[in-house]
Amino acid sequence: MIAAPVQAKRSFASDNNAGVHPEILEAIARVNQGHVVAYGDDSFTQSAVKKFEQHFGDGIEVFFAFNGTGANVLGLQALTRPYQAILCSDYAHIYTDECAAPEKHLGCKLIPLPHQNGKITVNQVRGAYHGIGDQHHVQAHVISITQSTEMGTVYQPEEVRALADFAHERGMFLHMDGARIANAAASLSQTLREATRDLGVDVLSFGGTKNGIMGGEAVVFFHPELSRDFLFLRKQGMQLASKMRFIAAQFEALLTNHLWKRSAEHANRMASLLEKEIRKIPGVKIIWDVQANGVFAQVPHHAIEKIRDRYFFYMWIEEQNIVRWMCSFDTTEEDVKDFARVVAEAVK
Amino acid sequence: MIAAPVQAKRSFASDNNAGVHPEILEAIARVNQGHVVAYGDDSFTQSAVKKFEQHFGDGIEVFFAFNGTGANVLGLQALTRPYQAILCSDYAHIYTDECAAPEKHLGCKLIPLPHQNGKITVNQVRGAYHGIGDQHHVQAHVISITQSTEMGTVYQPEEVRALADFAHERGMFLHMDGARIANAAASLSQTLREATRDLGVDVLSFGGTKNGIMGGEAVVFFHPELSRDFLFLRKQGMQLASKMRFIAAQFEALLTNHLWKRSAEHANRMASLLEKEIRKIPGVKIIWDVQANGVFAQVPHHAIEKIRDRYFFYMWIEEQNIVRWMCSFDTTEEDVKDFARVVAEAVK
Amino acid sequence: MIAAPVQAKRSFASDNNAGVHPEILEAIARVNQGHVVAYGDDSFTQSAVKKFEQHFGDGIEVFFAFNGTGANVLGLQALTRPYQAILCSDYAHIYTDECAAPEKHLGCKLIPLPHQNGKITVNQVRGAYHGIGDQHHVQAHVISITQSTEMGTVYQPEEVRALADFAHERGMFLHMDGARIANAAASLSQTLREATRDLGVDVLSFGGTKNGIMGGEAVVFFHPELSRDFLFLRKQGMQLASKMRFIAAQFEALLTNHLWKRSAEHANRMASLLEKEIRKIPGVKIIWDVQANGVFAQVPHHAIEKIRDRYFFYMWIEEQNIVRWMCSFDTTEEDVKDFARVVAEAVK
Amino acid sequence: MIAAPVQAKRSFASDNNAGVHPEILEAIARVNQGHVVAYGDDSFTQSAVKKFEQHFGDGIEVFFAFNGTGANVLGLQALTRPYQAILCSDYAHIYTDECAAPEKHLGCKLIPLPHQNGKITVNQVRGAYHGIGDQHHVQAHVISITQSTEMGTVYQPEEVRALADFAHERGMFLHMDGARIANAAASLSQTLREATRDLGVDVLSFGGTKNGIMGGEAVVFFHPELSRDFLFLRKQGMQLASKMRFIAAQFEALLTNHLWKRSAEHANRMASLLEKEIRKIPGVKIIWDVQANGVFAQVPHHAIEKIRDRYFFYMWIEEQNIVRWMCSFDTTEEDVKDFARVVAEAVK
Repeated sequence: MIAAPVQAKRSFASDNNAGVHPEILEAIARVNQGHVVAYGDDSFTQSAVKKFEQHFGDGIEVFFAFNGTGANVLGLQALTRPYQAILCSDYAHIYTDECAAPEKHLGCKLIPLPHQNGKITVNQVRGAYHGIGDQHHVQAHVISITQSTEMGTVYQPEEVRALADFAHERGMFLHMDGARIANAAASLSQTLREATRDLGVDVLSFGGTKNGIMGGEAVVFFHPELSRDFLFLRKQGMQLASKMRFIAAQFEALLTNHLWKRSAEHANRMASLLEKEIRKIPGVKIIWDVQANGVFAQVPHHAIEKIRDRYFFYMWIEEQNIVRWMCSFDTTEEDVKDFARVVAEAVK
Repeated sequence: MIAAPVQAKRSFASDNNAGVHPEILEAIARVNQGHVVAYGDDSFTQSAVKKFEQHFGDGIEVFFAFNGTGANVLGLQALTRPYQAILCSDYAHIYTDECAAPEKHLGCKLIPLPHQNGKITVNQVRGAYHGIGDQHHVQAHVISITQSTEMGTVYQPEEVRALADFAHERGMFLHMDGARIANAAASLSQTLREATRDLGVDVLSFGGTKNGIMGGEAVVFFHPELSRDFLFLRKQGMQLASKMRFIAAQFEALLTNHLWKRSAEHANRMASLLEKEIRKIPGVKIIWDVQANGVFAQVPHHAIEKIRDRYFFYMWIEEQNIVRWMCSFDTTEEDVKDFARVVAEAVK
Repeated sequence: MIAAPVQAKRSFASDNNAGVHPEILEAIARVNQGHVVAYGDDSFTQSAVKKFEQHFGDGIEVFFAFNGTGANVLGLQALTRPYQAILCSDYAHIYTDECAAPEKHLGCKLIPLPHQNGKITVNQVRGAYHGIGDQHHVQAHVISITQSTEMGTVYQPEEVRALADFAHERGMFLHMDGARIANAAASLSQTLREATRDLGVDVLSFGGTKNGIMGGEAVVFFHPELSRDFLFLRKQGMQLASKMRFIAAQFEALLTNHLWKRSAEHANRMASLLEKEIRKIPGVKIIWDVQANGVFAQVPHHAIEKIRDRYFFYMWIEEQNIVRWMCSFDTTEEDVKDFARVVAEAVK
Repeated sequence: MIAAPVQAKRSFASDNNAGVHPEILEAIARVNQGHVVAYGDDSFTQSAVKKFEQHFGDGIEVFFAFNGTGANVLGLQALTRPYQAILCSDYAHIYTDECAAPEKHLGCKLIPLPHQNGKITVNQVRGAYHGIGDQHHVQAHVISITQSTEMGTVYQPEEVRALADFAHERGMFLHMDGARIANAAASLSQTLREATRDLGVDVLSFGGTKNGIMGGEAVVFFHPELSRDFLFLRKQGMQLASKMRFIAAQFEALLTNHLWKRSAEHANRMASLLEKEIRKIPGVKIIWDVQANGVFAQVPHHAIEKIRDRYFFYMWIEEQNIVRWMCSFDTTEEDVKDFARVVAEAVK
């Protein structure tokens, strides 16, 4: 375990190092009234689900879970049997950052495809789609993509559409890990529906924690028949909250008055500013296109520890000295400039 | 799914139908300041762990999880390999109310023993401890008890001690599902340590949700070597919160100024009052000793639906018309009397 | 582990202590010619499958597995998702003698019903069929029975039919562990089809090992759509033999010239003889009806060890001094009489 | 599924397309005498285990399983907990040909390393050994290699030793999938012990099926403490044979009078001959060093189907027209020459 230094007020380590947006906290307090039935059978939860319908359209099913790993794994479980395989990027969160929760819980193999600028392409998926009908081989059944990606890039609508088409032509599904779908949609100037359902996504992990909520994630099914037994999968998957209203209320607030969009746009804007500031620093190289709220930079080795004395952040690819800096809903221009100054100093 | 009626302000359906205690909500707001490292590597979490050490003594390990099912399953995973078995009551939450999450996640068999007043006894455990060394049989390795029990009763200290001794003499472990350990300790006038560690419990699910927190559960290990790889089990088990401080803060508050005890004592007292009122009603029979915050009563069939028109609650044993009524930290004397009046009316 | 004494030539410990019937061994040698494609894509396997069709009728699907546990678990996997439950006797092989392989591999809960003369009844199943639609509870989805039973009794046709009807009316399935289906069919003077498919069984583990083959088991699906992905389940379940022809040949022989029936009838007859001889011995009590090839007797404690000095066998219910004695295809009348003599002597 | 053509008498599709060596069949018949205790508690099994001790030395533990997938998965289970990872070649049998049985049964992630001439190197393993101690990442715990490899090459002793050392220095284990360990040892002129235990292998899947036995595999532990609970893992893993003597007898014969070596040397020699003949054919290219009993060749696309009209075999890497041809204990020089002639004809 890496010991964290005393924390600067707002770091660039991760958007989940931020706290809770005040509107979210208010929403939590607002639903703290009297008794309501547990496990989601309450009016607050129903109201939050309606909000999802306003954004994504009718004919969807929405279920709240505790966190992104839970939402991803359970969403994928609804789509698979254990002998089936999931195609994803070799840097997909489900592949590298969930401690094999998918393998453990689903029994499925995840087939890693070398990311291209954070993404996977139809050509790669086609190459990995083989052994179909051969009992010795896992059967490719789901394509899973992360939007925005783990490298801070954003799939273009036509890229998502192409993957969805490839999947559907073969009876497969397209799963989207949308831990930062808000940042992607904001970046593309799309509505949430345009960025997901309209492109052929079948199941979405709709993230909130990285966009200012306290905790919780929503699994959104765009074909209700896929979720027929999801209540049981969620309970057995240890992701059923008893006091559900307090998760629901957070999502209700996130989807009200464009909070999701305001927060995401702000974080994206801060990342753009950070990119601009960093590009001024000789010897530091921006590695992937800054399209959402993350900046990935190659930094001289000697500088990394110096910056870390002041700010905690993660190495992304250790051997190449590539680091990750994330902006969040509460990052300020001053934060960015202070940080860029520390980087510039350290690199000297 | 049972459709819930419009909810009376405070029902007796479950202690998890209550909301959040104001002191808990304040604690959440208080830690919402700036950025801190995610996943528990922050000072708020460290501070909460220290609180646990104040209550349970040094040399423990504490991990937060999302809910009771998660805490139970992961605590048990730390103690077992899949060919081992867990002995528990046939009404244990892990046996009947977790949708086979233990079987799915652990691969273990749970061996149900017919509850005696909500509890299991050393004699029963002895009877089920067989086939040891026989490769065809699962190997009994954990005794799991719920304190207070699913029937509202409380294990006496010597009963817990006897089960712990039986387990330890055979290289087995004693696990306690303490979803309502606060109610049990309050009932027994014990400290949390006296009610658990001092009786030989090896791993405890320390519940908060049923005692006024918003969400979260703690897994407490009284022998640190048992938790050596628990960080990985928790992450793979989809129970690692990113914004951990908001769970930690709730437990910090629960363990501060005796909040856990004040709330539990109050709920227990309300259950006593409810028992007293119910006993006055001819034709309604209290089934198990009221020792914590639940009252289990046999109610004439015709009355059940009538009461349910006004109050939502659960049938506990359908065939015998036994129902469960729970009190919580916010139940008032007036609530109890109103409810008892409705019951009396319905039974007439 | 129980140390086995030097073995008498033919014991009564288990029908799987017997060796291989000569006709089976010949069949194995007969297919040992040249190369054939592995994994079942060979003409010997196709031929064996045709034999099954002759016995069970068209429109079935047959898959070979290595052993009874494998066949049971995989057959059940084809019928279930992990949140579903399997209702069975508390003495079912899948419940007590497979070291929780079903729980580990399926993730399902098995719900034990107290056996009645070795069997479970529709009334019991009805009592255990509850919590349907409740996300906290496993969802009963399969009834599994063993024919002949672990207690040596045989379900009557109308008993099987009633269980099948109960299941099908609720969208559930009837699974039959037919480790000794040959003994049952012989006992009932039924064809294999009459004893299974015609009674509404959905999936059958068709046993051979206890009826004179060397090793192997067949999973027979009476509704092909249930087996759509079974090739993958079998491979992933580690039950796919490469040199499949050598398992197939054994079943071909077993189903040729009534070998299955001749062997089963003989074993049953020997059990009848054994019962007759044992009934003559004062102080030994036959416990369950002897309807197949096993005799279960209550024997004075002091006698058990004496008999065991000469013959290895298993205690069935230790606390009650109930032992199990099995006959097999090669048991002779002399064997039976010798054994009964030893028992009589020991009891004196 | 690929439909197989009418089979030539001896194909080059796979060493598991061959039948059973006569000495093995005799051994099976020889142990078919009377009753013996099932599940391995018999003298034939004990005798076979002794044979293993003669070859591998004292202080080992040997367990029979049904097939290679079973042996690999269970051997790996003895070494891992679900959050740990297994490093292997991207063409390892456990990675590509077991339909995710390891992921399903262990819950572990397998991390694929691009094979180098069929092998993985210490440098690759070092590169993949990261994230240690980070709860989000699986923890590398086992290196698994196949000897001889899936590409027909053979690890040199110093290569195995280096991997073992790397593993042991980090508290990891070295697992060897020895489906063709006999071919490797024969190729290296090593004893079985020299080829495995003496190089630091911790657990070995000792294959027989590809070297002339009917069916069965042995898991050999070189550190008995690793196998402490293996009896239970095997039973729960559905790999416990009841009539164990018939698997044991096969291994006894394989390890008697150098049968393992005679058969492996012969198969290797036939592969050498095949290589020689194939090298004469213009337009066909041998791809990897022929060091055991397999020849991998790049064949003009138009020729492949022509050859397949006469001989069934597998594409190894479809996009590159690389095919696999295997020799076995019963391949004759004439077989090889006939086959080479057909290839030459087809390529023209």
